Amino acid sequence: MAKTRAERLISNADGMDAVVIANDGEPFLDSTFWYLTEQTSGTFEGSFAVVRKDGSMDVIVSVLEEESANAGKGDVRVYHDREERERFIRDALSGCSKVGFNMHSATYAAVQYIKKVAGEFEPVDAGKAIGDTVSVKDAKEIEATRRACGISSKVAAEIPDYLSEGVSEREVAARMDSRIRELGGTGNAFDTIAAFGEYSSQPHHMPCDYRLKKGDTALFDFGSKYDRYCSDMTRTVFLGKPPEILERAYEIVREAQAAGIGEYRDGAEAKAADLAARKIIDDSEFKGKFIHSFGHGIGMDVHQDISVSPRSDQILRAGNIVSAEPGIYIPGVGGIRIEDTCLITENGCEILTSFDHSFTVV
Amino acid sequence: MAKTRAERLISNADGMDAVVIANDGEPFLDSTFWYLTEQTSGTFEGSFAVVRKDGSMDVIVSVLEEESANAGKGDVRVYHDREERERFIRDALSGCSKVGFNMHSATYAAVQYIKKVAGEFEPVDAGKAIGDTVSVKDAKEIEATRRACGISSKVAAEIPDYLSEGVSEREVAARMDSRIRELGGTGNAFDTIAAFGEYSSQPHHMPCDYRLKKGDTALFDFGSKYDRYCSDMTRTVFLGKPPEILERAYEIVREAQAAGIGEYRDGAEAKAADLAARKIIDDSEFKGKFIHSFGHGIGMDVHQDISVSPRSDQILRAGNIVSAEPGIYIPGVGGIRIEDTCLITENGCEILTSFDHSFTVV
Repeated sequence: MAKTRAERLISNADGMDAVVIANDGEPFLDSTFWYLTEQTSGTFEGSFAVVRKDGSMDVIVSVLEEESANAGKGDVRVYHDREERERFIRDALSGCSKVGFNMHSATYAAVQYIKKVAGEFEPVDAGKAIGDTVSVKDAKEIEATRRACGISSKVAAEIPDYLSEGVSEREVAARMDSRIRELGGTGNAFDTIAAFGEYSSQPHHMPCDYRLKKGDTALFDFGSKYDRYCSDMTRTVFLGKPPEILERAYEIVREAQAAGIGEYRDGAEAKAADLAARKIIDDSEFKGKFIHSFGHGIGMDVHQDISVSPRSDQILRAGNIVSAEPGIYIPGVGGIRIEDTCLITENGCEILTSFDHSFTVV
Repeated sequence: MAKTRAERLISNADGMDAVVIANDGEPFLDSTFWYLTEQTSGTFEGSFAVVRKDGSMDVIVSVLEEESANAGKGDVRVYHDREERERFIRDALSGCSKVGFNMHSATYAAVQYIKKVAGEFEPVDAGKAIGDTVSVKDAKEIEATRRACGISSKVAAEIPDYLSEGVSEREVAARMDSRIRELGGTGNAFDTIAAFGEYSSQPHHMPCDYRLKKGDTALFDFGSKYDRYCSDMTRTVFLGKPPEILERAYEIVREAQAAGIGEYRDGAEAKAADLAARKIIDDSEFKGKFIHSFGHGIGMDVHQDISVSPRSDQILRAGNIVSAEPGIYIPGVGGIRIEDTCLITENGCEILTSFDHSFTVV
């Protein structure tokens, strides 16, 4: 019989007697909780999943979440008050001397609370074990991601229709977000970035009231969710002919993306893709203008812990889903980014998003 | 001269030499960072705001966020690598022996990292100081919340138009989310809850493919964001005449909400509103069916740390923004919830959301 997700996690958690996934209040909720319980509903604030050595899992939730929790995996323990919650935590961790937490997701307060309640154990970082587990997607997860990518790809294709002189970043972002929902997306994977003109040189610019002018770059970085899974893509187009330097930058970014994607395959070093793309940009007139990493893991969170950067020591595995997003940023002029969501396969990768990558003047 | 937000925070932080707001990776970002810097743009992963005794504030950000950061408050320190980041953190905390963190927002890894980098200090919980600071809204924050409430109120008014036999929870939620954006909302305050029929008895049900039938309850809990500020409201209507028990429950919830709101004013105990509403429900045939709190603070996060619950020891202040949301949940039958967003004033409260609160059969 195939291993459960909880069993896969604990088998990756070397030397740990248990792994605790601790949700604090919204938005400090750990997607790993939904991954392990395979919940589709519920908010699960103040809820805990405890996976033990034998692969069993206690799911400790308040009475508010009882109905939702019973529809998911694990042994559900419903608490009615603080005392009962603490008893369940103590029971779940009884006899454990080394307990793993997702240290970059669990709040300081949550870890301290569990230590106080469950007595003496050594808290250790289970981040790598969790990352190794959730980063290899199963068929159901790939299908959900494929759906999310299909929805945002349709929006990407429509982008030129949304653009005309005088339309604002906010207006276009709102229209894209509406379309994501009309097309069946269950939400945004993250706040849509719409950046026009000079604003496009800020990788994380948020939509403002700036209105599109002739010659402006129009950069859109966005994604859909479908059944909790994310897509992530960036399309950059132009309203009227832009300064020539941006046309040259566009072609270099496109070439860099193709070179990076060419390195994506099972068993490859993650950094190889970044270095291949970066070499093309740094060998051009745009040396030093690619100021972020080539890619990152994608799952229920739009940033999961695969780092496709020059300093990454990770190895890609079939079933990983990663972005491919080189960019060139020229302050005061504009920025270019092209991004797809890619599924790593045995022999290469499958690009799950699609849009016209050619230099597009609307 | 009026105090800056940073000065207000540190004056609330008794005995602390500094308060650190630490952003980990998305979604583990602390809205207090945006509150203090008054940023409107940027993602600010791996960024830190350090407020010191004299009210000065260092804003430590990566080069990726440089342009966005320079548009905000504080002394911006742009790091290009890990070593530089660590030097800025050490400089900012030099000489501090007691350092406050938002322990329910900062990840365990972030607090441990700063302790490791900045040497010996005692980390303490600045949660109350932060809560006391951000919970009293200024005019700009109230105006943004008012806009968010106006947008979601328009959607609430349209809800009956969206409903007909056979429409699914997902379809209606998608339409509501689209409308929020069309009306100028910058996003959802949280994932829209659309719960039909028996599903409405689960307070945190997420929209599924269930299709609306004659006699079903249709409960919608949703909010808009405007300039980062949230609204939060719930409207419950019915497609055709529901079981009589739900009509009776509706009237009790409406009465309970009015009673609770009647207790909202500057200087009142927060629990008074909860107890007034709870008494009405517990004195009815629905005793014990109000299974959550009457309300919570609302700001840049849809749940801020004002608790309007039976066990709250907090005192309401003019400028607080809180929800008023009693409910009755009958498993296997359905649930009723009515919710508004309220601004506490000197003599009472102003209800910022609006919709027809009467028993509505579509």
